[in-house]
Amino acid sequence: MIIGFQGEAGAFSDAAARRLRPGAQTRGYLSFDLLVAAVDGGEIDAALLPVENSIAGSIPRSYDLLWEYANLHAIAETAFPVEMNLIGTLDAVEANIREIRSHPVALEQIHRFAGTHPAWKRVAVADTAGAVAEIVALGEPAIAAVGPALAAELYGAKVLRTAIQDDPRNFTRFYLLAREPQSHGTLGCVAIEVENRPGTLRDALSAFADRGLDLRSLVARPNHVDPFHYRFFFEIGDVDRARLDAALGAIAGTARIIGIFSREP
Amino acid sequence: MIIGFQGEAGAFSDAAARRLRPGAQTRGYLSFDLLVAAVDGGEIDAALLPVENSIAGSIPRSYDLLWEYANLHAIAETAFPVEMNLIGTLDAVEANIREIRSHPVALEQIHRFAGTHPAWKRVAVADTAGAVAEIVALGEPAIAAVGPALAAELYGAKVLRTAIQDDPRNFTRFYLLAREPQSHGTLGCVAIEVENRPGTLRDALSAFADRGLDLRSLVARPNHVDPFHYRFFFEIGDVDRARLDAALGAIAGTARIIGIFSREP
Repeated sequence: MIIGFQGEAGAFSDAAARRLRPGAQTRGYLSFDLLVAAVDGGEIDAALLPVENSIAGSIPRSYDLLWEYANLHAIAETAFPVEMNLIGTLDAVEANIREIRSHPVALEQIHRFAGTHPAWKRVAVADTAGAVAEIVALGEPAIAAVGPALAAELYGAKVLRTAIQDDPRNFTRFYLLAREPQSHGTLGCVAIEVENRPGTLRDALSAFADRGLDLRSLVARPNHVDPFHYRFFFEIGDVDRARLDAALGAIAGTARIIGIFSREP
Repeated sequence: MIIGFQGEAGAFSDAAARRLRPGAQTRGYLSFDLLVAAVDGGEIDAALLPVENSIAGSIPRSYDLLWEYANLHAIAETAFPVEMNLIGTLDAVEANIREIRSHPVALEQIHRFAGTHPAWKRVAVADTAGAVAEIVALGEPAIAAVGPALAAELYGAKVLRTAIQDDPRNFTRFYLLAREPQSHGTLGCVAIEVENRPGTLRDALSAFADRGLDLRSLVARPNHVDPFHYRFFFEIGDVDRARLDAALGAIAGTARIIGIFSREP
């Protein structure tokens, strides 16, 4: 089985894919669009697409792709901890470090730790896993990277300090997308477009709430047809297929199931 | 009156501020955070904060700031057309251009026009208005910028071609934020945090719908306390203050009015 992810080998998404499906091969893609096109085209068996980060919120492009690729289905969900590590060359020691490299967002998420080393130069690069590959290629023990532990393992570097991020509760949620839907699970994701008149969204939410379907999250995205008109994505907990079908049937508008799945470690 | 905006002089936000309050002075800030802090601290009278783009969707950081700064109030809304222009030095002619510079998002939004000039080199810079300032400073008629007409006027450049963007219906919506609330208007923005149990969001939407308050848009943001728990922002059309207060009173949770205002040109 081949699972695709966005990023370079050793990225957080790569680590999440390996944890979700141990033994699967993983393959990196340059963008979310290329990743989703690859599973749609049969080049890979599944794609691990990030849909939300617990700090930054929902990932807009992912939701647009979930809508565009109506033939693809979410078949699993996983929440992966984004743990930043200080990573050096095999002969590095923390006391001798003078420079750290990582993606700008990763550097922003380690303010507290970096503040204890004010003299360190901070260099922004395109990718956290790529930063690790870079410092290994340089072979200069004074230059370290901030990134995922998996990248240290893959590129032959050393984790000097684990969990250096400011917020210990930083998670990214992913959907595993495949060409064949799954009919059982505890969670469901549905997408709807309703007419833009008073009460339509409330009526859609009532269609779920009246049937005991618990709304876990909601994302609004432009419909990309009329400015300031939207489509909505709902994630439902304790899902029951019959009740979900009944709820979708009661919605006045376009509605479709993105997937039925369970949260997996 | 001084209105702040995010960006360099001549940016789309600057043009929107000048159109909204003719005769006001405008002042640019490096980030949304600095802009909002400036109006909160009394350095400027109002801040024009972008909340949504019709293609890209809601602007997450703006909503987080609307929540954080409980002392600030939206007092006007405006939808400004994002019109990209080909801008050259005063002696430039389109036939002799060899390079265009702009923000990467602006360069992405002119694919169709740029496709008719495949030989042009495309250079990404930090800011659309800054690109215009740059080509004027260079003084090389073969190097043009893609950006707002206001920047051409401010920096002494020439608009060679107007409205070159792919999608003619690209708008950004802004809220004008001030320290004093306004009590009348046709629109309202409210923020709520409800308990995370079945039906709470539906009940909140019902509190509005049952009172004939038309939900125009909805934004969900992480509450930045518990991972995957949210706060919601609703924009209401045809607002009536008494009915809005009644609706907020009926919501089981935290609710506050971000502002009552009208759409202005």
